[in-house]
Amino acid sequence: MSDKQRALVVLSGGQDSTTCLYWALDHFGKDSVETITFDYGQRHIIELKSAQKIASIANVANTVIPINSFAAMGGNALTDTDIKVDNSLETDTQLPNTFVPGRNLIFLTFAAAFAYNKNIHNLVTGVAQTDYSGYPDCRQKTMEALEKTLKLGLECKITIHTPLMFKSKKETVIMAKKLGGLSALAHSHTCYNNQYPPCGSCPACQLRAKGFKDAGITDPLLQKNHG
Amino acid sequence: MSDKQRALVVLSGGQDSTTCLYWALDHFGKDSVETITFDYGQRHIIELKSAQKIASIANVANTVIPINSFAAMGGNALTDTDIKVDNSLETDTQLPNTFVPGRNLIFLTFAAAFAYNKNIHNLVTGVAQTDYSGYPDCRQKTMEALEKTLKLGLECKITIHTPLMFKSKKETVIMAKKLGGLSALAHSHTCYNNQYPPCGSCPACQLRAKGFKDAGITDPLLQKNHG
Repeated sequence: MSDKQRALVVLSGGQDSTTCLYWALDHFGKDSVETITFDYGQRHIIELKSAQKIASIANVANTVIPINSFAAMGGNALTDTDIKVDNSLETDTQLPNTFVPGRNLIFLTFAAAFAYNKNIHNLVTGVAQTDYSGYPDCRQKTMEALEKTLKLGLECKITIHTPLMFKSKKETVIMAKKLGGLSALAHSHTCYNNQYPPCGSCPACQLRAKGFKDAGITDPLLQKNHG
Repeated sequence: MSDKQRALVVLSGGQDSTTCLYWALDHFGKDSVETITFDYGQRHIIELKSAQKIASIANVANTVIPINSFAAMGGNALTDTDIKVDNSLETDTQLPNTFVPGRNLIFLTFAAAFAYNKNIHNLVTGVAQTDYSGYPDCRQKTMEALEKTLKLGLECKITIHTPLMFKSKKETVIMAKKLGGLSALAHSHTCYNNQYPPCGSCPACQLRAKGFKDAGITDPLLQKNHG
């Protein structure tokens, strides 16, 4: 790997992308990583502050890019406050109502455009096929197709790194600890209902809790004084 | 083809997408077509009014979706008014400075997400490999890769139709006339410099003028009284 390789991490402020940031720091080196965060009208807006805090702890640049389009299209529980977050699956799609169609495709395409302008050829994203919430835009095959699309559409070298793709939440927690990311994870945000202490009942909270429990590690978020 | 097939046309208000709208009306039937237009901070904002007028003439629905992200990223002549539209190619990329990286990928991904919510399985776009301005996101191979990405990422049937892909501008003009789209083309907008009468010197104006000249048809835009 050339020492000129740089990477852009899509940092949501959540557990997985925070872990990916620490993976990238380890893989590309601490001076070769920056982060991008999308403000897309998400209900869990506290994620944006988490992302900025985490980038600050990791000492990397963070750029927030707004996306006002999802909210304009409506129809999902993450950007539409009229819809209650629900654990059950929609009868027609068999997907949870937190599914924002195309969200990761859009995030990574904007990230690629941003990276293109900065001559960065590596994107890092925390999508995972294991333990995923049924989102088809988190799968390996989707990422492979998207990488090809971005290479052709931007006519440039681009690699999408997905270090968590086949890891369970337990393995992700262990990985974060090994890479020194636990202190940053204390500031990560997961709860879809935007509550602190976390609601504990939304799909995201349940997945996080199970991962820490299975890893035998206490979630630093729950130890933190958020006063 | 099932008579329940419906289509969403990405309508920019320009010549090519207007022609595609008339292709879609012919192909899917007049009650099976709607249009989507993106307000992405483009310099040629007059296109939005053109799109609405054209949709009105064609008697189809038009939804305008805002995208504030490109302007936030900056660096191109279409959304950044500090940069002058230029015919020459950038020395590093060999692309004109009107290239908005990933623009068509983003448009079609948002269009797919919008279509997903409405259970529409056909997208129509006016991208063309022939006579194109050097944009890699207009090529057939890019569209094929994107279609595959959207199918996987949204886990649904989706077809991207590109009726102009291998047509010259001359052929596109002849096609528009044959499909009864000339009166709508009188309201289409092309000039990158947002002028009326069109500036005639930007790459888009030059391409349009050549197409009509080669087809032996007078551009209805130039006959129109814009008073």
